[in-house]
Amino acid sequence: MSNPKKLAVILSGCGVYDGAEIHEATLTLYSIMKQGATYEIFAPDVKQAHVVNHLTGEEMAEERNVLVESARIARGAVKNLKEYDASEFDALILPGGFGAAKNLSNFAFAGTDMNINPDVEKAIGDTVKAKKPIGALCIAPVILAKMFPNIGITIGQDGDTAEVIESLGAVHHETTHGEVIVDEEYKVATTPCYMLDANILQIAEGADNVVREVLGMT
Amino acid sequence: MSNPKKLAVILSGCGVYDGAEIHEATLTLYSIMKQGATYEIFAPDVKQAHVVNHLTGEEMAEERNVLVESARIARGAVKNLKEYDASEFDALILPGGFGAAKNLSNFAFAGTDMNINPDVEKAIGDTVKAKKPIGALCIAPVILAKMFPNIGITIGQDGDTAEVIESLGAVHHETTHGEVIVDEEYKVATTPCYMLDANILQIAEGADNVVREVLGMT
Repeated sequence: MSNPKKLAVILSGCGVYDGAEIHEATLTLYSIMKQGATYEIFAPDVKQAHVVNHLTGEEMAEERNVLVESARIARGAVKNLKEYDASEFDALILPGGFGAAKNLSNFAFAGTDMNINPDVEKAIGDTVKAKKPIGALCIAPVILAKMFPNIGITIGQDGDTAEVIESLGAVHHETTHGEVIVDEEYKVATTPCYMLDANILQIAEGADNVVREVLGMT
Repeated sequence: MSNPKKLAVILSGCGVYDGAEIHEATLTLYSIMKQGATYEIFAPDVKQAHVVNHLTGEEMAEERNVLVESARIARGAVKNLKEYDASEFDALILPGGFGAAKNLSNFAFAGTDMNINPDVEKAIGDTVKAKKPIGALCIAPVILAKMFPNIGITIGQDGDTAEVIESLGAVHHETTHGEVIVDEEYKVATTPCYMLDANILQIAEGADNVVREVLGMT
Protein backbone atom coordinates (compact mmCIF):
# COMPACT_ATOMS: atom_id res chain seq x y z
CA MET A 1 0.00 0.00 0.00
CA SER A 2 1.28 3.45 -0.84
CA ASN A 3 1.65 6.04 1.88
CA PRO A 4 -1.51 8.01 2.58
CA LYS A 5 -1.71 11.47 1.05
CA LYS A 6 -0.96 14.22 3.55
CA LEU A 7 -2.99 17.42 3.48
CA ALA A 8 -2.32 20.71 5.22
CA VAL A 9 -5.38 22.55 6.57
CA ILE A 10 -5.22 26.29 7.33
CA LEU A 11 -7.55 27.48 10.11
CA SER A 12 -8.38 31.12 10.86
CA GLY A 13 -9.61 30.98 14.47
CA CYS A 14 -12.60 29.20 16.02
CA GLY A 15 -16.13 30.39 15.23
CA VAL A 16 -17.93 31.47 12.08
CA TYR A 17 -18.18 35.22 12.79
CA ASP A 18 -14.54 35.96 13.67
CA GLY A 19 -12.65 32.76 12.84
CA ALA A 20 -12.87 29.39 11.10
CA GLU A 21 -16.36 27.99 10.61
CA ILE A 22 -16.41 25.06 13.03
CA HIS A 23 -18.63 22.65 11.06
CA GLU A 24 -16.70 23.26 7.83
CA ALA A 25 -13.35 22.81 9.58
CA THR A 26 -14.38 19.66 11.50
CA LEU A 27 -16.13 18.04 8.54
CA THR A 28 -13.12 18.80 6.30
CA LEU A 29 -10.84 16.98 8.76
CA TYR A 30 -13.34 14.13 8.88
CA SER A 31 -13.58 13.96 5.05
CA ILE A 32 -9.80 13.87 4.72
CA MET A 33 -9.47 10.85 7.01
CA LYS A 34 -12.60 9.16 5.62
CA GLN A 35 -11.02 9.33 2.16
CA GLY A 36 -7.83 7.66 3.40
CA ALA A 37 -5.60 10.71 3.73
CA THR A 38 -4.06 12.38 6.78
CA TYR A 39 -3.84 16.01 7.83
CA GLU A 40 -1.78 18.56 9.70
CA ILE A 41 -3.29 21.84 10.85
CA PHE A 42 -1.73 25.30 10.54
CA ALA A 43 -2.79 28.83 11.46
CA PRO A 44 -1.11 32.24 11.36
CA ASP A 45 0.18 33.52 14.71
CA VAL A 46 -1.62 36.89 14.56
CA LYS A 47 -4.24 38.76 16.58
CA GLN A 48 -7.82 38.23 15.40
CA ALA A 49 -9.27 41.25 13.57
CA HIS A 50 -11.83 41.34 16.38
CA VAL A 51 -13.86 39.09 18.69
CA VAL A 52 -17.58 38.62 18.03
CA ASN A 53 -20.10 37.42 20.62
CA HIS A 54 -21.68 34.59 18.61
CA LEU A 55 -24.89 34.78 20.64
CA THR A 56 -25.62 38.48 19.98
CA GLY A 57 -23.46 39.18 16.91
CA GLU A 58 -21.89 42.14 18.71
CA GLU A 59 -18.20 42.90 18.93
CA MET A 60 -16.61 42.12 22.33
CA ALA A 61 -13.97 44.28 24.04
CA GLU A 62 -11.31 41.58 24.08
CA GLU A 63 -8.43 40.24 22.04
CA ARG A 64 -7.80 36.69 20.87
CA ASN A 65 -5.01 35.10 18.82
CA VAL A 66 -5.77 33.14 15.62
CA LEU A 67 -3.24 30.35 16.30
CA VAL A 68 -4.37 29.93 19.93
CA GLU A 69 -8.09 29.85 19.05
CA SER A 70 -7.49 27.51 16.08
CA ALA A 71 -5.95 25.11 18.60
CA ARG A 72 -9.47 24.59 19.99
CA ILE A 73 -10.56 22.92 16.74
CA ALA A 74 -7.18 21.18 16.41
CA ARG A 75 -7.18 19.87 20.02
CA GLY A 76 -3.78 21.52 20.46
CA ALA A 77 -2.23 19.95 17.35
CA VAL A 78 -1.74 23.10 15.27
CA LYS A 79 1.47 24.66 13.94
CA ASN A 80 2.42 28.22 13.16
CA LEU A 81 1.72 28.70 9.43
CA LYS A 82 5.29 30.02 9.04
CA GLU A 83 6.42 26.38 9.43
CA TYR A 84 4.37 25.18 6.43
CA ASP A 85 6.60 23.68 3.73
CA ALA A 86 4.74 22.84 0.51
CA SER A 87 7.26 20.10 -0.30
CA GLU A 88 6.05 18.09 2.73
CA PHE A 89 2.38 17.99 1.69
CA ASP A 90 0.30 16.71 -1.19
CA ALA A 91 -2.34 19.45 -1.02
CA LEU A 92 -3.63 22.42 0.97
CA ILE A 93 -7.19 23.08 2.19
CA LEU A 94 -8.79 26.26 3.53
CA PRO A 95 -12.14 25.88 5.31
CA GLY A 96 -14.28 29.02 5.49
CA GLY A 97 -15.82 31.23 8.13
CA PHE A 98 -15.36 35.00 8.38
CA GLY A 99 -11.84 34.31 9.69
CA ALA A 100 -10.76 33.75 6.08
CA ALA A 101 -12.01 37.26 5.25
CA LYS A 102 -10.95 38.92 8.53
CA ASN A 103 -7.78 37.15 9.72
CA LEU A 104 -6.27 35.34 6.71
CA SER A 105 -7.12 38.40 4.64
CA ASN A 106 -8.99 41.64 5.28
CA PHE A 107 -11.55 41.11 2.49
CA ALA A 108 -14.49 41.63 4.88
CA PHE A 109 -13.28 45.15 5.70
CA ALA A 110 -11.46 46.25 2.51
CA GLY A 111 -13.24 44.48 -0.39
CA THR A 112 -11.22 44.80 -3.62
CA ASP A 113 -8.49 46.71 -1.73
CA MET A 114 -7.91 43.60 0.36
CA ASN A 115 -4.54 42.42 1.62
CA ILE A 116 -3.61 38.85 2.39
CA ASN A 117 -1.67 37.80 5.49
CA PRO A 118 1.92 37.23 4.22
CA ASP A 119 2.19 33.71 5.69
CA VAL A 120 -1.10 32.75 4.01
CA GLU A 121 0.02 34.26 0.71
CA LYS A 122 3.36 32.42 0.85
CA ALA A 123 1.72 29.07 1.76
CA ILE A 124 -0.76 29.33 -1.12
CA GLY A 125 1.85 30.69 -3.58
CA ASP A 126 4.35 27.93 -2.75
CA THR A 127 1.66 25.26 -3.14
CA VAL A 128 0.59 26.53 -6.57
CA LYS A 129 4.23 26.87 -7.66
CA ALA A 130 4.78 23.24 -6.61
CA LYS A 131 1.78 22.34 -8.83
CA LYS A 132 -0.06 20.84 -5.85
CA PRO A 133 -3.83 21.24 -5.50
CA ILE A 134 -5.70 23.60 -3.17
CA GLY A 135 -9.25 23.31 -1.87
CA ALA A 136 -11.19 26.28 -0.47
CA LEU A 137 -14.65 26.40 1.14
CA CYS A 138 -17.21 29.16 1.71
CA ILE A 139 -15.61 32.64 1.56
CA ALA A 140 -11.99 31.38 1.52
CA PRO A 141 -11.92 31.34 -2.34
CA VAL A 142 -11.73 35.18 -2.38
CA ILE A 143 -8.09 34.86 -1.28
CA LEU A 144 -7.39 32.80 -4.41
CA ALA A 145 -9.31 35.32 -6.54
CA LYS A 146 -7.02 38.07 -5.31
CA MET A 147 -3.85 36.05 -5.98
CA PHE A 148 -4.47 34.41 -9.37
CA PRO A 149 -5.68 36.24 -12.51
CA ASN A 150 -8.59 34.61 -14.33
CA ILE A 151 -8.95 31.80 -11.82
CA GLY A 152 -12.36 30.11 -11.86
CA ILE A 153 -13.96 29.79 -8.44
CA THR A 154 -17.29 29.75 -6.62
CA ILE A 155 -18.65 31.31 -3.44
CA GLY A 156 -22.20 30.12 -4.21
CA GLN A 157 -24.88 32.62 -5.22
CA ASP A 158 -24.17 35.89 -3.40
CA GLY A 159 -24.29 38.50 -6.17
CA ASP A 160 -22.40 41.26 -4.35
CA THR A 161 -19.50 39.01 -3.39
CA ALA A 162 -19.43 37.47 -6.87
CA GLU A 163 -19.18 40.98 -8.34
CA VAL A 164 -16.19 41.83 -6.15
CA ILE A 165 -14.56 38.54 -7.14
CA GLU A 166 -15.04 39.35 -10.82
CA SER A 167 -13.62 42.85 -10.32
CA LEU A 168 -10.53 41.21 -8.79
CA GLY A 169 -10.07 39.57 -12.19
CA ALA A 170 -11.37 36.08 -11.33
CA VAL A 171 -14.27 34.24 -12.95
CA HIS A 172 -17.17 33.42 -10.64
CA HIS A 173 -19.36 30.35 -11.24
CA GLU A 174 -22.74 30.16 -9.50
CA THR A 175 -23.23 26.90 -7.59
CA THR A 176 -25.58 25.22 -5.15
CA HIS A 177 -25.04 22.79 -2.23
CA GLY A 178 -22.27 20.27 -2.68
CA GLU A 179 -21.16 21.55 -6.09
CA VAL A 180 -17.45 22.07 -6.70
CA ILE A 181 -15.78 24.32 -9.26
CA VAL A 182 -12.37 23.06 -10.40
CA ASP A 183 -9.83 25.36 -12.02
CA GLU A 184 -7.49 22.97 -13.81
CA GLU A 185 -4.76 25.53 -14.53
CA TYR A 186 -4.23 26.39 -10.86
CA LYS A 187 -5.47 22.99 -9.57
CA VAL A 188 -7.96 24.75 -7.31
CA ALA A 189 -11.30 23.27 -6.13
CA THR A 190 -13.90 25.49 -4.42
CA THR A 191 -17.37 24.89 -2.92
CA PRO A 192 -19.84 27.31 -1.29
CA CYS A 193 -20.83 25.57 2.02
CA TYR A 194 -22.24 28.19 4.46
CA MET A 195 -22.03 30.96 1.85
CA LEU A 196 -25.42 29.40 1.01
CA ASP A 197 -28.22 28.98 3.53
CA ALA A 198 -27.17 25.44 4.42
CA ASN A 199 -27.57 22.70 7.00
CA ILE A 200 -24.81 20.52 8.39
CA LEU A 201 -25.59 17.66 5.97
CA GLN A 202 -24.96 20.00 3.04
CA ILE A 203 -21.69 21.16 4.62
CA ALA A 204 -20.55 17.54 4.94
CA GLU A 205 -21.43 16.97 1.28
CA GLY A 206 -19.47 20.07 0.20
CA ALA A 207 -16.45 19.08 2.29
CA ASP A 208 -16.53 15.49 0.95
CA ASN A 209 -16.74 16.69 -2.64
CA VAL A 210 -14.00 19.31 -2.42
CA VAL A 211 -11.65 16.87 -0.63
CA ARG A 212 -12.38 14.25 -3.31
CA GLU A 213 -11.56 16.71 -6.13
CA VAL A 214 -8.39 17.84 -4.35
CA LEU A 215 -7.21 14.25 -3.77
CA GLY A 216 -7.98 13.48 -7.40
CA MET A 217 -5.54 16.21 -8.49
CA THR A 218 -2.66 15.03 -6.24
CA MET B 1 -44.28 10.55 6.72
CA SER B 2 -44.15 11.09 10.46
CA ASN B 3 -42.52 14.17 11.89
CA PRO B 4 -38.79 13.87 12.40
CA LYS B 5 -37.59 13.18 15.95
CA LYS B 6 -36.31 16.29 17.70
CA LEU B 7 -33.24 16.06 19.92
CA ALA B 8 -31.88 18.58 22.39
CA VAL B 9 -28.09 18.87 22.57
CA ILE B 10 -26.40 20.41 25.63
CA LEU B 11 -23.06 22.12 24.98
CA SER B 12 -20.57 23.21 27.64
CA GLY B 13 -18.49 25.83 25.84
CA CYS B 14 -16.22 25.55 22.80
CA GLY B 15 -12.95 23.62 23.03
CA VAL B 16 -11.91 20.31 24.58
CA TYR B 17 -9.89 21.63 27.55
CA ASP B 18 -12.41 24.11 28.99
CA GLY B 19 -15.64 23.49 27.06
CA ALA B 20 -17.42 21.15 24.66
CA GLU B 21 -15.17 18.94 22.53
CA ILE B 22 -15.63 20.42 19.05
CA HIS B 23 -15.37 17.24 16.96
CA GLU B 24 -17.75 15.34 19.28
CA ALA B 25 -20.25 18.20 19.25
CA THR B 26 -20.12 18.78 15.48
CA LEU B 27 -20.23 15.09 14.59
CA THR B 28 -23.15 14.55 17.00
CA LEU B 29 -25.13 17.30 15.21
CA TYR B 30 -24.16 15.73 11.87
CA SER B 31 -25.20 12.23 13.04
CA ILE B 32 -28.56 13.51 14.24
CA MET B 33 -29.41 15.01 10.85
CA LYS B 34 -27.89 12.10 8.91
CA GLN B 35 -30.24 9.76 10.80
CA GLY B 36 -33.27 11.85 9.86
CA ALA B 37 -33.79 13.74 13.11
CA THR B 38 -33.44 17.43 13.95
CA TYR B 39 -31.78 19.23 16.84
CA GLU B 40 -31.88 22.29 19.04
CA ILE B 41 -28.84 23.37 21.03
CA PHE B 42 -28.80 24.49 24.67
CA ALA B 43 -26.13 25.61 27.12
CA PRO B 44 -26.15 26.98 30.67
CA ASP B 45 -25.68 30.74 30.99
CA VAL B 46 -22.75 30.58 33.45
CA LYS B 47 -19.12 31.64 33.55
CA GLN B 48 -16.64 28.97 32.42
CA ALA B 49 -14.69 27.40 35.31
CA HIS B 50 -11.60 28.79 33.59
CA VAL B 51 -10.13 29.49 30.14
CA VAL B 52 -7.36 27.23 28.82
CA ASN B 53 -4.93 28.18 26.05
CA HIS B 54 -5.40 25.13 23.80
CA LEU B 55 -1.94 25.60 22.25
CA THR B 56 0.03 25.51 25.51
CA GLY B 57 -2.45 23.87 27.91
CA GLU B 58 -1.97 26.77 30.34
CA GLU B 59 -4.74 28.70 32.07
CA MET B 60 -5.39 32.18 30.64
CA ALA B 61 -6.19 35.26 32.72
CA GLU B 62 -9.59 35.86 31.16
CA GLU B 63 -13.24 34.99 31.59
CA ARG B 64 -15.65 33.47 29.09
CA ASN B 65 -19.31 32.50 29.28
CA VAL B 66 -20.48 28.94 28.50
CA LEU B 67 -23.61 30.01 26.57
CA VAL B 68 -21.71 32.64 24.53
CA GLU B 69 -18.84 30.28 23.64
CA SER B 70 -21.25 27.41 22.85
CA ALA B 71 -22.82 29.77 20.30
CA ARG B 72 -19.61 29.39 18.25
CA ILE B 73 -20.38 25.70 17.62
CA ALA B 74 -24.11 26.47 17.25
CA ARG B 75 -23.54 29.37 14.79
CA GLY B 76 -25.62 31.54 17.13
CA ALA B 77 -28.55 29.12 17.36
CA VAL B 78 -28.29 28.19 21.02
CA LYS B 79 -30.77 28.70 23.86
CA ASN B 80 -30.30 29.19 27.57
CA LEU B 81 -30.65 25.71 29.12
CA LYS B 82 -33.25 27.17 31.54
CA GLU B 83 -35.63 27.20 28.53
CA TYR B 84 -35.32 23.44 27.95
CA ASP B 85 -38.68 21.68 28.28
CA ALA B 86 -38.45 17.88 28.14
CA SER B 87 -42.00 17.66 26.79
CA GLU B 88 -40.89 19.37 23.56
CA PHE B 89 -38.12 16.88 22.71
CA ASP B 90 -37.77 13.18 21.98
CA ALA B 91 -34.32 12.81 23.54
CA LEU B 92 -31.34 14.65 25.02
CA ILE B 93 -27.66 14.34 24.08
CA LEU B 94 -24.54 15.55 25.90
CA PRO B 95 -21.29 15.61 23.89
CA GLY B 96 -18.10 15.53 25.94
CA GLY B 97 -15.03 17.66 26.45
CA PHE B 98 -13.75 18.91 29.81
CA GLY B 99 -16.64 21.40 29.80
CA ALA B 100 -18.90 18.54 30.95
CA ALA B 101 -16.60 18.04 33.97
CA LYS B 102 -15.79 21.73 34.56
CA ASN B 103 -18.87 23.75 33.55
CA LEU B 104 -21.86 21.36 33.51
CA SER B 105 -20.48 19.83 36.69
CA ASN B 106 -17.30 20.29 38.73
CA PHE B 107 -16.22 16.64 38.49
CA ALA B 108 -12.75 17.61 37.17
CA PHE B 109 -12.06 19.59 40.35
CA ALA B 110 -14.13 17.80 43.02
CA GLY B 111 -14.23 14.11 41.99
CA THR B 112 -16.81 12.19 44.05
CA ASP B 113 -17.75 15.42 45.87
CA MET B 114 -18.92 16.83 42.54
CA ASN B 115 -21.90 19.11 42.11
CA ILE B 116 -23.98 19.43 38.97
CA ASN B 117 -25.12 22.75 37.52
CA PRO B 118 -28.80 23.03 38.58
CA ASP B 119 -30.06 23.69 35.03
CA VAL B 120 -28.20 20.61 33.79
CA GLU B 121 -29.53 18.50 36.66
CA LYS B 122 -33.10 19.64 36.01
CA ALA B 123 -32.85 19.03 32.24
CA ILE B 124 -31.52 15.50 32.74
CA GLY B 125 -33.90 14.74 35.62
CA ASP B 126 -36.95 15.94 33.66
CA THR B 127 -35.91 13.87 30.64
CA VAL B 128 -35.51 10.67 32.66
CA LYS B 129 -38.81 11.33 34.48
CA ALA B 130 -40.49 11.72 31.07
CA LYS B 131 -39.00 8.29 30.13
CA LYS B 132 -37.14 9.82 27.20
CA PRO B 133 -33.66 8.61 26.26
CA ILE B 134 -30.36 10.37 26.92
CA GLY B 135 -27.05 9.95 25.12
CA ALA B 136 -23.71 11.00 26.61
CA LEU B 137 -20.23 10.98 25.09
CA CYS B 138 -16.71 10.98 26.51
CA ILE B 139 -16.63 12.28 30.12
CA ALA B 140 -20.27 13.51 30.14
CA PRO B 141 -21.53 10.13 31.53
CA VAL B 142 -20.08 11.00 34.99
CA ILE B 143 -22.96 13.44 35.41
CA LEU B 144 -25.40 10.55 34.95
CA ALA B 145 -23.35 8.38 37.35
CA LYS B 146 -23.77 11.06 40.02
CA MET B 147 -27.54 11.36 39.47
CA PHE B 148 -28.73 7.76 39.07
CA PRO B 149 -27.89 4.88 41.44
CA ASN B 150 -26.64 1.67 39.77
CA ILE B 151 -26.78 3.14 36.28
CA GLY B 152 -24.60 1.31 33.76
CA ILE B 153 -22.31 3.57 31.75
CA THR B 154 -18.92 3.76 30.03
CA ILE B 155 -16.14 6.29 29.83
CA GLY B 156 -13.84 3.88 27.99
CA GLN B 157 -10.82 2.38 29.73
CA ASP B 158 -9.49 4.98 32.15
CA GLY B 159 -9.11 3.05 35.42
CA ASP B 160 -9.01 6.06 37.77
CA THR B 161 -12.14 7.65 36.33
CA ALA B 162 -13.91 4.28 36.26
CA GLU B 163 -13.09 3.85 39.96
CA VAL B 164 -14.61 7.23 40.82
CA ILE B 165 -17.69 6.34 38.79
CA GLU B 166 -18.08 3.07 40.70
CA SER B 167 -17.65 4.86 44.02
CA LEU B 168 -20.51 7.17 42.98
CA GLY B 169 -22.64 4.00 42.90
CA ALA B 170 -22.74 3.48 39.14
CA VAL B 171 -21.56 0.44 37.20
CA HIS B 172 -18.73 1.06 34.75
CA HIS B 173 -18.32 -1.04 31.59
CA GLU B 174 -15.00 -1.00 29.77
CA THR B 175 -15.37 -0.23 26.05
CA THR B 176 -13.33 0.57 22.97
CA HIS B 177 -13.92 2.85 19.94
CA GLY B 178 -17.49 3.09 18.74
CA GLU B 179 -18.94 0.82 21.45
CA VAL B 180 -22.07 1.97 23.25
CA ILE B 181 -23.34 0.91 26.68
CA VAL B 182 -27.11 1.07 27.04
CA ASP B 183 -28.82 1.23 30.42
CA GLU B 184 -32.36 0.14 29.67
CA GLU B 185 -33.83 1.20 33.03
CA TYR B 186 -32.79 4.82 32.63
CA LYS B 187 -32.77 4.71 28.78
CA VAL B 188 -29.23 6.02 28.74
CA ALA B 189 -26.64 5.33 26.00
CA THR B 190 -22.95 6.21 26.54
CA THR B 191 -19.78 5.93 24.41
CA PRO B 192 -16.14 6.85 25.18
CA CYS B 193 -15.03 8.95 22.14
CA TYR B 194 -11.98 11.07 23.12
CA MET B 195 -11.78 9.45 26.58
CA LEU B 196 -9.82 6.96 24.48
CA ASP B 197 -6.83 7.90 22.33
CA ALA B 198 -8.95 8.36 19.22
CA ASN B 199 -8.97 9.87 15.75
CA ILE B 200 -11.82 11.81 14.17
CA LEU B 201 -13.12 8.73 12.28
CA GLN B 202 -13.57 6.93 15.59
CA ILE B 203 -15.37 9.95 17.05
CA ALA B 204 -17.78 9.93 14.09
CA GLU B 205 -18.39 6.22 14.65
CA GLY B 206 -19.09 6.76 18.37
CA ALA B 207 -21.44 9.66 17.66
CA ASP B 208 -23.29 7.68 14.97
CA ASN B 209 -23.71 4.69 17.27
CA VAL B 210 -24.87 6.61 20.32
CA VAL B 211 -27.36 8.65 18.25
CA ARG B 212 -28.67 5.40 16.70
CA GLU B 213 -29.20 3.82 20.14
CA VAL B 214 -30.87 6.97 21.45
CA LEU B 215 -33.21 7.22 18.45
CA GLY B 216 -34.00 3.50 18.85
CA MET B 217 -35.26 4.17 22.39
CA THR B 218 -37.54 7.11 21.41
